[in-house]
Amino acid sequence: MSLPQTRTARLATWSANLTYDNIPDAAIQRTKDLFLDWLGCTIAGRSHPAVTAIVNFAKTMGPTTGKSELVNGELGFSTSPAFASLINGAASHVVEQDDLHNRSITHPATVIFPAALAVAQDVGADGKDFITACVVGYEVGCRVGAYFGKSHYENFHSTATAGILGVAAAAAHLLKLDPAQTLSALGTAGTQAAGLWQFLLDATHSKQVHTGKACFDGIFAAYSARDGLLGTRDILEGPRGMGKALVPGQITPEAIDRDLGKDFEVLHSSFKWHASCRHTHPSVDALLALMTKHGVKFEEIDSVLVPTYQAALNVLGMSGDCETVHQSKFSMGFVLAIAAKKGQAMITDFNEEDLRDASIREFQGRVNMVFDEEIDNAFPERWTGRVVVTTKDGRVLEERAAFAKGDPEFTLTRTELETKTRSLAKYGGVTNVEKVEALIQRAWNLENEGDLHGFVF
Amino acid sequence: MSLPQTRTARLATWSANLTYDNIPDAAIQRTKDLFLDWLGCTIAGRSHPAVTAIVNFAKTMGPTTGKSELVNGELGFSTSPAFASLINGAASHVVEQDDLHNRSITHPATVIFPAALAVAQDVGADGKDFITACVVGYEVGCRVGAYFGKSHYENFHSTATAGILGVAAAAAHLLKLDPAQTLSALGTAGTQAAGLWQFLLDATHSKQVHTGKACFDGIFAAYSARDGLLGTRDILEGPRGMGKALVPGQITPEAIDRDLGKDFEVLHSSFKWHASCRHTHPSVDALLALMTKHGVKFEEIDSVLVPTYQAALNVLGMSGDCETVHQSKFSMGFVLAIAAKKGQAMITDFNEEDLRDASIREFQGRVNMVFDEEIDNAFPERWTGRVVVTTKDGRVLEERAAFAKGDPEFTLTRTELETKTRSLAKYGGVTNVEKVEALIQRAWNLENEGDLHGFVF
Repeated sequence: MSLPQTRTARLATWSANLTYDNIPDAAIQRTKDLFLDWLGCTIAGRSHPAVTAIVNFAKTMGPTTGKSELVNGELGFSTSPAFASLINGAASHVVEQDDLHNRSITHPATVIFPAALAVAQDVGADGKDFITACVVGYEVGCRVGAYFGKSHYENFHSTATAGILGVAAAAAHLLKLDPAQTLSALGTAGTQAAGLWQFLLDATHSKQVHTGKACFDGIFAAYSARDGLLGTRDILEGPRGMGKALVPGQITPEAIDRDLGKDFEVLHSSFKWHASCRHTHPSVDALLALMTKHGVKFEEIDSVLVPTYQAALNVLGMSGDCETVHQSKFSMGFVLAIAAKKGQAMITDFNEEDLRDASIREFQGRVNMVFDEEIDNAFPERWTGRVVVTTKDGRVLEERAAFAKGDPEFTLTRTELETKTRSLAKYGGVTNVEKVEALIQRAWNLENEGDLHGFVF
Repeated sequence: MSLPQTRTARLATWSANLTYDNIPDAAIQRTKDLFLDWLGCTIAGRSHPAVTAIVNFAKTMGPTTGKSELVNGELGFSTSPAFASLINGAASHVVEQDDLHNRSITHPATVIFPAALAVAQDVGADGKDFITACVVGYEVGCRVGAYFGKSHYENFHSTATAGILGVAAAAAHLLKLDPAQTLSALGTAGTQAAGLWQFLLDATHSKQVHTGKACFDGIFAAYSARDGLLGTRDILEGPRGMGKALVPGQITPEAIDRDLGKDFEVLHSSFKWHASCRHTHPSVDALLALMTKHGVKFEEIDSVLVPTYQAALNVLGMSGDCETVHQSKFSMGFVLAIAAKKGQAMITDFNEEDLRDASIREFQGRVNMVFDEEIDNAFPERWTGRVVVTTKDGRVLEERAAFAKGDPEFTLTRTELETKTRSLAKYGGVTNVEKVEALIQRAWNLENEGDLHGFVF
């Protein structure tokens, strides 16, 4: 079948044809970093009630034997790739520690890795196949998210709505679909894309549904394309496609296929160092830098003004009174209070006890966000942090962070990633330290793995 | 948990609390009519390539034993409710013969019945439970579609995007969820809602994906709500909910809960008599009436002008040159040519041979649609047909149809429904006539069934 001359078809063709040998070493190494980081996030989030309900659904509706494994080995079963990725994809988006791709405003790891791992296990792919498929998944998902832009993100959880196309592309690559079949898979993925931010307003559980279902549905798209189901061929730019229906503002068509194969999106994803919503990170870094530079302590701060971009105001403005630990990670005031008081905002720094800490709650009330046009214009290419602190003795201090710790410009070292992984595994209740170390070593050696089974805590 | 004072919460509460005894007999009888009509559509569509691919997906990813059955008995397996409804929901939306609810612009049967039947079989519900759940499903799905209105329908296949909430409500009722859990199920359903019209432009297979997945995903919403997954509590009207994100134009909030329990949406759904897109039906009826009234024959017609509403122009305008039988059912020109030549447009009247019939193709080219403001203003409350025929001998004749055959004002009799069912079963390749007659009788006796298994051809 001849393909149409569209950006979407060019993306599908590139996805189907990418080989391991055409990926620069830096992108391969970064993919391994991102994979290990994802593994830690997945085990850390395994006990969330949404994940438990989704596990029950998988056991009720799906098989309890199969080639695809659950990262949480205590569940004691394996299943088909669609259900394994549903569970792993939900679990990896719980603890707010997964990576973030700035330009697309998506968290690619939480959808690409669970889907690619489950399909790789199903088809018996090796480490190089898996890495290649993940690079494809990142490329497609992140480009689609960048095409949608920030007006889409106002309503939609773009990790899911853009990510589902990345999942479909990664799965299609592992299934060795040709460009036309891959284009079908993208069409079927895009017409299933969903995920609204409404759940943030009442702290309910849709976040994990969105990522888990993006995996399941993207896998549906690829397997059904293999089996003859035709997906529409211009789901991104067509007159009734995603750009038309799901993007109220500006789209960026050139993001779909500009510099394909020259630049790699895995290189532009940021690790999270802090354990809160990524929109708080640049401000946390700016505040910590300010406190160090001027020797200001938690108790000395009277108020903090945070000039920021609109998307941060939108997302963080929905977390209300922070009744839950999860909500507290979406409150700029609460997060800055934790950082200011503890000098860090790691995963163990958010807990029930702190929710009831009057000094933190009081500090939280003295943090205000305001719209900053210059910062907003630079977003989402740059996620700039800025804080203006007024001290109780009357000083007004200001600090900026051009990027956050973990951004590509300031990425985490392998030592830091290992530390983070150990901490995530510990948070997830893993006591077998040797197992954690062995999985870390497997991740660093991923391209030489002949079989992808066994990434189980 | 106390429920918010919202329309969505009122709808959830009503859904959870409805009992069989509170449903008027007319609504019960109509539900049985709609169920039989759906069964016929399901068996008629069983061989579509999209259905075949989806069956393969179900066998690869799901169990091949379970309590929920496939209407197509030749497939030779049963499965879990999510997968059974995925397959049956896809198959029942193939032949363009399923019901249509005017105000919501949705086809409720193709999502409500497959999901409710599969869950009823899973939980061991009886006929009265099943009918009650279907009435709930229609009510919720149709009200949500009416809330979204016609601007939503410009981009979205609302049968899926609104229907998924009906599925969730029907499944929740069968699972005996309380109002708060039902509200959770609606939230989780709504945040998964998807389905774009883009596939119409290249005649690909997303239509069946949308209905099958609406079943699967709505069942996910209900079962996961039972197991503790919290869905957002104002998915319809919340500031980042469906109304905000998925409706570019006017919403109708009162449609969500006006006259709840007094009026029943099952009574407002229309049967399809013709086998084409429902947007062509009023014009077909008007043309056939005109030809009868004035004794005009196919060969005598020079041209047909069809003044119509915008949604018809949008949907029918996307079918291009009608390369496939399916596309031909979406071409006003082709459908009117078939009706004018054959005096009817039943399921056996659309085939490959007619696609190559020069007289039909030539007639097709002499049919033009134009926008009619009066008809558009009345839509979707009224789907009015109007044709202006110019004959080769120079007469200009005009006819209107205030509604189509099968509309609630002119519904099908049980005899007509039996005829249609036999014809659909025959089209689907069913040779066991006794079996068809037995299923027809079971449908008429549905409220007395103790067990819902065995609706299998």
